[in-house]
Amino acid sequence: MRDTHDACHVAIPARDLDEAVEFYVFGLGVKMARRYADRVTFDFFGDQLVCHLSDEVPEEAVMYPRHFGVSFARPEDFDRLARLVETRKLRVLTGPSVRFEGTAEQHRTLALADPSNNVIEFKNYDDPRLQY
Amino acid sequence: MRDTHDACHVAIPARDLDEAVEFYVFGLGVKMARRYADRVTFDFFGDQLVCHLSDEVPEEAVMYPRHFGVSFARPEDFDRLARLVETRKLRVLTGPSVRFEGTAEQHRTLALADPSNNVIEFKNYDDPRLQY
Amino acid sequence: MRDTHDACHVAIPARDLDEAVEFYVFGLGVKMARRYADRVTFDFFGDQLVCHLSDEVPEEAVMYPRHFGVSFARPEDFDRLARLVETRKLRVLTGPSVRFEGTAEQHRTLALADPSNNVIEFKNYDDPRLQY
Amino acid sequence: MRDTHDACHVAIPARDLDEAVEFYVFGLGVKMARRYADRVTFDFFGDQLVCHLSDEVPEEAVMYPRHFGVSFARPEDFDRLARLVETRKLRVLTGPSVRFEGTAEQHRTLALADPSNNVIEFKNYDDPRLQY
Amino acid sequence: MRDTHDACHVAIPARDLDEAVEFYVFGLGVKMARRYADRVTFDFFGDQLVCHLSDEVPEEAVMYPRHFGVSFARPEDFDRLARLVETRKLRVLTGPSVRFEGTAEQHRTLALADPSNNVIEFKNYDDPRLQY
Amino acid sequence: MRDTHDACHVAIPARDLDEAVEFYVFGLGVKMARRYADRVTFDFFGDQLVCHLSDEVPEEAVMYPRHFGVSFARPEDFDRLARLVETRKLRVLTGPSVRFEGTAEQHRTLALADPSNNVIEFKNYDDPRLQY
Amino acid sequence: MRDTHDACHVAIPARDLDEAVEFYVFGLGVKMARRYADRVTFDFFGDQLVCHLSDEVPEEAVMYPRHFGVSFARPEDFDRLARLVETRKLRVLTGPSVRFEGTAEQHRTLALADPSNNVIEFKNYDDPRLQY
Amino acid sequence: MRDTHDACHVAIPARDLDEAVEFYVFGLGVKMARRYADRVTFDFFGDQLVCHLSDEVPEEAVMYPRHFGVSFARPEDFDRLARLVETRKLRVLTGPSVRFEGTAEQHRTLALADPSNNVIEFKNYDDPRLQY
Repeated sequence: MRDTHDACHVAIPARDLDEAVEFYVFGLGVKMARRYADRVTFDFFGDQLVCHLSDEVPEEAVMYPRHFGVSFARPEDFDRLARLVETRKLRVLTGPSVRFEGTAEQHRTLALADPSNNVIEFKNYDDPRLQY
Repeated sequence: MRDTHDACHVAIPARDLDEAVEFYVFGLGVKMARRYADRVTFDFFGDQLVCHLSDEVPEEAVMYPRHFGVSFARPEDFDRLARLVETRKLRVLTGPSVRFEGTAEQHRTLALADPSNNVIEFKNYDDPRLQY
Repeated sequence: MRDTHDACHVAIPARDLDEAVEFYVFGLGVKMARRYADRVTFDFFGDQLVCHLSDEVPEEAVMYPRHFGVSFARPEDFDRLARLVETRKLRVLTGPSVRFEGTAEQHRTLALADPSNNVIEFKNYDDPRLQY
Repeated sequence: MRDTHDACHVAIPARDLDEAVEFYVFGLGVKMARRYADRVTFDFFGDQLVCHLSDEVPEEAVMYPRHFGVSFARPEDFDRLARLVETRKLRVLTGPSVRFEGTAEQHRTLALADPSNNVIEFKNYDDPRLQY
Repeated sequence: MRDTHDACHVAIPARDLDEAVEFYVFGLGVKMARRYADRVTFDFFGDQLVCHLSDEVPEEAVMYPRHFGVSFARPEDFDRLARLVETRKLRVLTGPSVRFEGTAEQHRTLALADPSNNVIEFKNYDDPRLQY
Repeated sequence: MRDTHDACHVAIPARDLDEAVEFYVFGLGVKMARRYADRVTFDFFGDQLVCHLSDEVPEEAVMYPRHFGVSFARPEDFDRLARLVETRKLRVLTGPSVRFEGTAEQHRTLALADPSNNVIEFKNYDDPRLQY
Repeated sequence: MRDTHDACHVAIPARDLDEAVEFYVFGLGVKMARRYADRVTFDFFGDQLVCHLSDEVPEEAVMYPRHFGVSFARPEDFDRLARLVETRKLRVLTGPSVRFEGTAEQHRTLALADPSNNVIEFKNYDDPRLQY
Repeated sequence: MRDTHDACHVAIPARDLDEAVEFYVFGLGVKMARRYADRVTFDFFGDQLVCHLSDEVPEEAVMYPRHFGVSFARPEDFDRLARLVETRKLRVLTGPSVRFEGTAEQHRTLALADPSNNVIEFKNYDDPRLQY
């Protein structure tokens, strides 16, 4: 469990801020909080995502070792995200699929790539206690 | 505000997992959740941090564009973190200092570097409503 | 998500305060908090609604651009409201019906008119994350 | 008290959507959720504000009978809002001032006008139990 | 909704304190908090019930106008209470039955009598918003 | 602690319903929820109070054995109530005063009488854990 | 953080159940939930403590390795407990004193012994995040 | 109900700390918080478990009178724990089975033994109100 009032903070590179707004707000449905010349900030599922204008974006979207996302405690929230991804035809990297099948830490996963090749992973553990 | 039961998920590279455990558990005081041959997972201030064993670690700790951390809603939580950093002599990159001074989004910041040169930023906004 | 202790505040005109109490308390089932010569205040689904005695009421109930209401996160709360509207035969403007069908922001809607032609809309999004 | 997951919904006219985004996001610091050709939606202090493109905007900003806003349960949240209004030089209609002084329902109030002359009122009651 | 930390306080007469403990703790399953020569206090479903030693107990258990109890927001909590009443063979005054059937404020009710003829009513409204 | 969604239920006699509304809504500042020919219901500090029209009202207001009220967990909520009682000149039976002084269960108390001689007690324990 | 609805469960030996009730209810101020011939159960600061009638009680109260208790997140709750211990003259084993002074995990501690020589420790960490 | 921010504290003996970490972290899935030469601390289902290095461990695992564990309010959390125990082949002492069958306090129970013969009991009451 975590505090409702604190926010996790994730900062990533974006090669173009308009493109980032397009993807995160009109694609993923997150909210735009602030925008500056060199960065745009989002309320990303209750946490803070900042896209910094940068040339250092990955050449292609690769799952490991760097990515970020959300572990949903409730399966229906994962399902809703998967439906939104399908409805809005967002770029899927892998999934939805099951990982660590048959173990206690079994979970569903769905990974997307943003326009700057940052990887976003959504998960739902059968036992949310093990989502850490 | 965010849901107490979901978890933000951040995955980063680590050149050595023992070193990561040493820094995150015995340094930052986060909790070790699971450990595998190629990764170790943490309950990082209520969210999930995963260190993946990887050679792709930065050569030096650079603030932008990639970092992650926590925005504390309450100033005393930022103060406690700053004291812990001092007491345990963790490697500070910048701060504690004030950013965007005199504006509505003024906040305190303190950035650390982990042994693999990943950057961790802690913040506290004067107006937590603007922490997104 | 929002804070449990703050209240959204909506002020609207009412041509007659007794009529407003009749509609909001005995019709919609909201609670009367305070009453003055020129206004009456309600605990409207946890937020504050104030009806100001005024001649500036709309000649007829029109949906756009001005209305107010509640987005219920849980479908059963929308269902209960719809049943109350039916049982108590409140004046329905539109619905219950589905809007933005087939999109991620699909939602059910039901709009009422109060005796002063103010429009009240109740909604339930398939994905409550998109209710903003 | 109110449910953290439901949202109060307020719809108002805006003569220009860019102007509305400028005022609400870059002025008041609320978050932009969605934007369509004829409307833009905001996460307004945890509730949903929708600006509908419309010619029916008031000729001037008048406090009664129509306005909307937030009653903050904690005085420091009102103070923060007042500071932001000052720092960002938003258009103030009245206040900060005290209303109903010396009575149990005494409260501070601060009213702004948006670019389409909609009035937004922020309040803080000495006794938050009476904020309804 | 109500605050989790405050407690509603109900004080009633009891002709015998041992008998009161027997009924409330071993019958209804509430918790004994404190006991004095002239009173015993209980954590009654999260609120405070005090039984004062007194001769002024009703001659028989009568529903109106004085009684106290709990409105459960969730039907399963009412069901559990009804099962406990049956399993432990507590003295039932009326119910379980339905009141105000077919109206928006329809609810189930079950009334018990304690050994001093105080009446305790448990309720569950179809629409918990109307439980006030 | 108690559940935010359940409600404690207290039913008392009132010799006149208008008088009850006058006292509870315009005096104590509680909210009127529903009114019938023979009863009126209130949202009384988050719990449900019902005044049943009845001749069985006490001849005078007597503290024991029957009364009801609220134990506030926070001293400032007791202070606010005491100020409201003073400002609105409500009929005080006893207090504000301190009971069980010097013991662990020390608390402040303030008792009022309603127009039908029902007694309402407000309390604040130095150690809210002992408020049961 | 932990779930409000689950309960930690601690079972310990007691050489005499009346004595256990005397100590835990009338001494420590916890609530008695249920009592059987061979055990008594308590709501111990929101968790479940069970005293099993047993001869296997320690000959004297020894701090390590076995004890149980509560880590209070707020200093004032520790202070209240310390005052109650003093007021009610409960048997203190050690403290109140400070442990791990000057480190990040510095905390106050106060240990009691129950009549069966079980040890109960109350703590308050300067940084509640490190209370695990 | 209990406070989300406090922690129940349980201290037990362990003959070997590595073995304790192996069982609690990699077996039960609890999180390691801190480790010292003579003890290791865990975030045990949101409460604090401390294993003190000690020779005083029981010769065999015996249910009474000493054990500790968790009462889950929701049946699905008990089910998940039971599945993890089965999947990871943890040492079961008794259950899953039903106790106090046919009574109001009926509950499911599952007891494990750790490598130092400490007994851990997980429970789920049909009526969580009676879990104390």
